[in-house]
Amino acid sequence: MVVSLLQSHDSKGRLYIIGTGPGDLLQMTSRSLKALGEADCVIGNGFYLDLVEPMLAGKEVVRSSMGKEVDRAKKALALAEDRVVAMVSGGDAGVYGMASIVLEVAERSGSMVAVEVIPGITAAISAASRLGSPLSGDYVTMSLSDLLTPREEIERRLDLAFRMRVPVVLYNPRSRGRPHNLDEAIAIARRHLPDTTPVGVMKNAYRKGEERLITTLGEFEGYFAFVDMHSIVFIGGEETRIWRDENGAQGIITPRGYHRKYVY
Amino acid sequence: MVVSLLQSHDSKGRLYIIGTGPGDLLQMTSRSLKALGEADCVIGNGFYLDLVEPMLAGKEVVRSSMGKEVDRAKKALALAEDRVVAMVSGGDAGVYGMASIVLEVAERSGSMVAVEVIPGITAAISAASRLGSPLSGDYVTMSLSDLLTPREEIERRLDLAFRMRVPVVLYNPRSRGRPHNLDEAIAIARRHLPDTTPVGVMKNAYRKGEERLITTLGEFEGYFAFVDMHSIVFIGGEETRIWRDENGAQGIITPRGYHRKYVY
Repeated sequence: MVVSLLQSHDSKGRLYIIGTGPGDLLQMTSRSLKALGEADCVIGNGFYLDLVEPMLAGKEVVRSSMGKEVDRAKKALALAEDRVVAMVSGGDAGVYGMASIVLEVAERSGSMVAVEVIPGITAAISAASRLGSPLSGDYVTMSLSDLLTPREEIERRLDLAFRMRVPVVLYNPRSRGRPHNLDEAIAIARRHLPDTTPVGVMKNAYRKGEERLITTLGEFEGYFAFVDMHSIVFIGGEETRIWRDENGAQGIITPRGYHRKYVY
Repeated sequence: MVVSLLQSHDSKGRLYIIGTGPGDLLQMTSRSLKALGEADCVIGNGFYLDLVEPMLAGKEVVRSSMGKEVDRAKKALALAEDRVVAMVSGGDAGVYGMASIVLEVAERSGSMVAVEVIPGITAAISAASRLGSPLSGDYVTMSLSDLLTPREEIERRLDLAFRMRVPVVLYNPRSRGRPHNLDEAIAIARRHLPDTTPVGVMKNAYRKGEERLITTLGEFEGYFAFVDMHSIVFIGGEETRIWRDENGAQGIITPRGYHRKYVY
């Protein structure tokens, strides 16, 4: 069995879809850096291109805007007919990123360009590492952006997610245009989880302006203004707790259940 | 605001908790490799130590067994009192890995060892990249192991997860001791999702013995024997589809919703 999205191809053209991770080059995999190094041409949204700026010297760089994802996918596939092209996407390109739209466009157009999706550290994982270990077991990943998913559908999923009483990670938690999406999500969480449930917000993990907030579901409302589109919000599950010592809140831990089996 | 789990400390001792990613060194971050390089001593389960073997030359290596996680956490914290210690954990150490138990033991013992959790590529992300883009939007991560979570609780969560009708990623899908956990999970999935729902299994992503299977929920039963503990199983959501061309199944795509906004 051949494990590859690469198709048989007789030219040198190929397209790498690369997750940049949180934004610090040290948090990219060697495979991602190697593929970026190989590329003749790099295409992406300006924000993510700037994060990998030291890797772009001597390459053709195609900057594309937010909201132009379909055009960007078409452009990347066209360029990759006879060149090595790297498309950059924040975090992991397969999670709220560019991988699916590129594959959709390739599928519909019958493109024969060889495509490889190269994994990256998704925001849930990078942000979690700065908070301690909030995602140790089962968890749910949700985006609050209703640009591509209808709001009623997001609310339906959130209700079920919080009923699982496992940690829920919120991507795109609060945009300037729709600050109330967060308020509504938290109202749904409070139907199913106690006010003492730990909440963590990680802003700009591993990037300039890194900041974090540790609070509880009952007190979170007072901090909504802290949350922006560069933040990831963690709502704890029923076993999640805040790890405190004499210096204050050190982090958030969701135990894996060893306490049910061992004394320590 | 200081973003760190590192505590004030006057000795050189510290503990890095490092995710090895899927197992190929190329899929580790530069930060992980650097921390591993810095360590005097590396501790972990034998399987994960073997995957990073080229990085272990000249270091003290402490091999620990599966099921001895609490002892391993205590040992790592003790060694890190005055040495640089790296603990390796598969995928991302924060997801079904060693980070939480180390922080729990540190919290309970009042340890003053400086701890840093370094993110890695978790199995859901590495396996997804080999299947196409199955996790493009919201998704749920579940483990079928009932060693640390009661079986009834796993079944309760699975029922809610499949009712979300988003992709569900199953870790530890089928052990030799409990092959029926997978059968039961799939029975729950079939209560809520049609038989045409795409299913992907990625075995040993980016490691020796890499293999994949693409099927549907209705036909999956015939392939249960393919699934083992080194596999990750993806059950699609209501929008997930198999990407086929004349060469057969190329992969699995969960569209992000651009088709609702654009013609392409």
